Amino acid sequence: MNSSYVIGVDFGTNSARAIVVSCADGRTVGTSVADYHSGEHGVLTHPKDPHLARQNPADYIGALGQSISAALSQAATTPGFARDRVIGIGVDTTGSTPLPLDARARPLAIDPQWESHLAAQAWLWKDHTGAGEAAAITAIAREHAPQYLEPIGGTYSSEWWWSKIWKCLKVAPEVFDAAASWVELADFVPAVLAGVDDPRRIVRCVCAAGHKAMFSDAWGGLPSKEFLARLDPKLAGLRDRLYDHAWPPGKPAGQLCQAWADVFALREGITIAMGGFDAHYGAVGSGIEVGTLVKIIGTSTCDCAIAPANVGNIPGICGTVDGSIMPGYFGLEAGQSAVGDIFNWWVEVVCEGGDELHHRLSREAAALQPGESGLLALDWNNGNRTILVDPKLTGLIVGQTLHTTRAEIYRALIEATAFGARAIIDRMREYGVRIDRVVCCGGVAEKNDLLMQIYADVLGQPMLIAGSPQAPALGAAISAAVTAGAAAGGYDSWTDAQRHMTTLKEKRFVPDAKAHATYNELYGIYRQLHDSFGNMPGAAVADLGTVMKRLLAMQAAVSA
Amino acid sequence: MNSSYVIGVDFGTNSARAIVVSCADGRTVGTSVADYHSGEHGVLTHPKDPHLARQNPADYIGALGQSISAALSQAATTPGFARDRVIGIGVDTTGSTPLPLDARARPLAIDPQWESHLAAQAWLWKDHTGAGEAAAITAIAREHAPQYLEPIGGTYSSEWWWSKIWKCLKVAPEVFDAAASWVELADFVPAVLAGVDDPRRIVRCVCAAGHKAMFSDAWGGLPSKEFLARLDPKLAGLRDRLYDHAWPPGKPAGQLCQAWADVFALREGITIAMGGFDAHYGAVGSGIEVGTLVKIIGTSTCDCAIAPANVGNIPGICGTVDGSIMPGYFGLEAGQSAVGDIFNWWVEVVCEGGDELHHRLSREAAALQPGESGLLALDWNNGNRTILVDPKLTGLIVGQTLHTTRAEIYRALIEATAFGARAIIDRMREYGVRIDRVVCCGGVAEKNDLLMQIYADVLGQPMLIAGSPQAPALGAAISAAVTAGAAAGGYDSWTDAQRHMTTLKEKRFVPDAKAHATYNELYGIYRQLHDSFGNMPGAAVADLGTVMKRLLAMQAAVSA
Repeated sequence: MNSSYVIGVDFGTNSARAIVVSCADGRTVGTSVADYHSGEHGVLTHPKDPHLARQNPADYIGALGQSISAALSQAATTPGFARDRVIGIGVDTTGSTPLPLDARARPLAIDPQWESHLAAQAWLWKDHTGAGEAAAITAIAREHAPQYLEPIGGTYSSEWWWSKIWKCLKVAPEVFDAAASWVELADFVPAVLAGVDDPRRIVRCVCAAGHKAMFSDAWGGLPSKEFLARLDPKLAGLRDRLYDHAWPPGKPAGQLCQAWADVFALREGITIAMGGFDAHYGAVGSGIEVGTLVKIIGTSTCDCAIAPANVGNIPGICGTVDGSIMPGYFGLEAGQSAVGDIFNWWVEVVCEGGDELHHRLSREAAALQPGESGLLALDWNNGNRTILVDPKLTGLIVGQTLHTTRAEIYRALIEATAFGARAIIDRMREYGVRIDRVVCCGGVAEKNDLLMQIYADVLGQPMLIAGSPQAPALGAAISAAVTAGAAAGGYDSWTDAQRHMTTLKEKRFVPDAKAHATYNELYGIYRQLHDSFGNMPGAAVADLGTVMKRLLAMQAAVSA
Repeated sequence: MNSSYVIGVDFGTNSARAIVVSCADGRTVGTSVADYHSGEHGVLTHPKDPHLARQNPADYIGALGQSISAALSQAATTPGFARDRVIGIGVDTTGSTPLPLDARARPLAIDPQWESHLAAQAWLWKDHTGAGEAAAITAIAREHAPQYLEPIGGTYSSEWWWSKIWKCLKVAPEVFDAAASWVELADFVPAVLAGVDDPRRIVRCVCAAGHKAMFSDAWGGLPSKEFLARLDPKLAGLRDRLYDHAWPPGKPAGQLCQAWADVFALREGITIAMGGFDAHYGAVGSGIEVGTLVKIIGTSTCDCAIAPANVGNIPGICGTVDGSIMPGYFGLEAGQSAVGDIFNWWVEVVCEGGDELHHRLSREAAALQPGESGLLALDWNNGNRTILVDPKLTGLIVGQTLHTTRAEIYRALIEATAFGARAIIDRMREYGVRIDRVVCCGGVAEKNDLLMQIYADVLGQPMLIAGSPQAPALGAAISAAVTAGAAAGGYDSWTDAQRHMTTLKEKRFVPDAKAHATYNELYGIYRQLHDSFGNMPGAAVADLGTVMKRLLAMQAAVSA
């Protein structure tokens, strides 16, 4: 029996969580969460710009040390565990979350000269200050280098690498000029553990490079200098100070350096796995394989799939990148910009309630049948990431009468996110991606049975739940186990590691045939609104004059 | 100085209010409200049918006696008032509210045999059980007698006379067979006061006949027997037991009979004015004239105008009837099926608040600028009466983000009703109806300053307020003063009576030019949604792909 252990650390939006995991069976023997201390729950904001969201890099380093130390202390009480049995550490993070570095690969923000400068911090995934830059990048690429947009669904996002760095150059040229290089948070943390002190020696993961930075071996790495010079000549100059190679997971990011080995009382030189995005490692930790869609459902949703061959450009799917989730497969990433956030908006902002109201509305909504409320909503309160790739879309609810209740609207909002989920799956299938199985993870999937049943009924597909409540950290740990290799006590193959280290919960949600039939009809109306208000490329201008009547007819049929 | 007095009695949905008014200056010297006692606040409902709304005719008679008696007692304390100076009584009521009568003109429901039968009661204006019958009447008239639909906007409503009587015939043929005749509540109450004991001697007002029963002298009164026989041969049989003549206000409905004169200690034989609908007499009491639109704004809204000549069929306007509001003019009636009801829905049903929340949301909404919320709503939670004449339409809200507040939605709902009001005015003007002035009355107009300012800004027109808070009862009193005539101490002319007896409040709401410009733009988007979702006849299928973006652009412009 395999007696090795690996550590996975998941850097979320508000905190970092470390788990210590048995290589034999994926069992967690220690876990600990460390909150970030700066700003509001770790997020630096600006009172006049709601689109700004930054993080203090010092928080990452503090939470790294604290979470691993505490998780190891907890593991130490498990019979059979010993610190010298830990063979590797894996890290996953949010992204695209780039930060500027100095010449010794330290965050610029650690320098007292820059520590209070917002542009010198990490630009958190949900920072949308670069919306104008994103639109310009899309327009320039469409004209001069359309190939760059192919793997990323045709539209460059304000949440991504170049939008943020270009925005920094515009609003804080002094920060841009002071930066020796930039790094994704996912690549930064492993480099810290490995003691890398030169930006050029940071190992860059293809999941960040390919999905967010328009990197592809097909055109020699990052976008060409000519292209970047069209944005700004200084960006062309930066290209030389970034990277020429990016790798699928499996290549080590380095070995644990002595300083951190001392902090944790771990063996110096154990494997530091390449970093990866939370969604991608979450997919690994949820047992992703060809034919399985992994949905990470939380405040927003990320959908991951892998394909054995390049499925080419799928319009509206954020990315299709060779090796981005697991080596040997094309990784596909899609997502919904708000899911749990929409229910939170309804309950907390509009109804001014809290957890108790969430539960009450959930109970009342569960008593309704599909179609009974006569309502239909679009799930765009935070824009639409997939398949319309348009942050400038907003919510819509139709079908209200003088009797419509808050619980009916609550259910309609859940249904709207389910229809959004279905639009993604339909689009993937339409382009030849096999989806036989849907595995979910994340807080909403764990706790919201009503949502899971509605999703099953809307998708016409059982909804399975990943066994680990910490799927991303588990995926990062699996990456460490595979990267360390069998010789060190880990695994030689991803599939082998997943088979031993991941599970599914027994609880699952099975579609009801009648509900599915009703939802098929409602989904038809949803798509009519979706295509009309979303300005769906190629969709015919729809005649919406019958929408309200069809909803009323469905309602009457349910009540009859 | 004129020392005469008249009484006006307003029969509302939940109670009757009587006022005693000086003919000299319209001053109220006595007022009293009497609630109806049956059902829920006077409305008989059915637990399984939300469309059913009936009233117990005994409640009308009880409230008639109680309200006039109490108003007279109050008036008795006014110096100069004496009961023998009262020269007439006028009555206004809801409508179309038909009830079945026996051969002695008594409500069938007073007979113990029928008193507990719902179909034998008065069919309240908002009873929608005859929706199927209304659709059938519209379809049959379109095919066989399109002229019948011309004065009523092209669509027969479930709220109207024939839909209700036909429905009664279908669901309770025993009631239909037992009825000697049917009468509108507006004609019934004056007949009671006059002691009429034969249905054939009831004086029928053209406001009910022309707007609700397809009566016109152009085709010899009510619809022909051939037409009615197409609905049901028994309806053709009923025609002989109804009426051949209907009159504009000014003709007396009779004289006060001895029995009621004794009850009130008034002179026997004083004038009983012809009854009329609350909206029409409300328009009179608000000082309607050519060029003035009177808006009665409450839970729903009724819009009245008069034209010096027949403006013909105006599509979607519920009615254009010769003499229906004042003799010598064509009376026009339009309306919105829900106004105050929509705000009540939002505050009470969704937000689960009361008066205090109404005030809080009103304050918060008043702090917003037009366009600032990025929201736009359709005011169709109870269907659309004018200009789409479609009860099967529902509400819609678009533009929500994760930050949208309940106050923003509250304001968007007010704006939606203002846009609905503008669609009515635009339609009237388009067909040559002069509207230079808008005078409002009703509870919402009196109390909701935010709404009044938004309406002024949306309509680009000052919003004036009728001087009397009881405009319908005042209008009924004016009708009594005119019908009694100058010889009795009243007036010979409507205009003369209005000039002396009606006023405007000093408070008025004047449009802000900048807000009006913004609302012009928003109204354009409103009409795009209105025409698309309302299946507006003749409107092009609209491309809605830019709606959300235009709302966001307006929001950005406001915030800039």
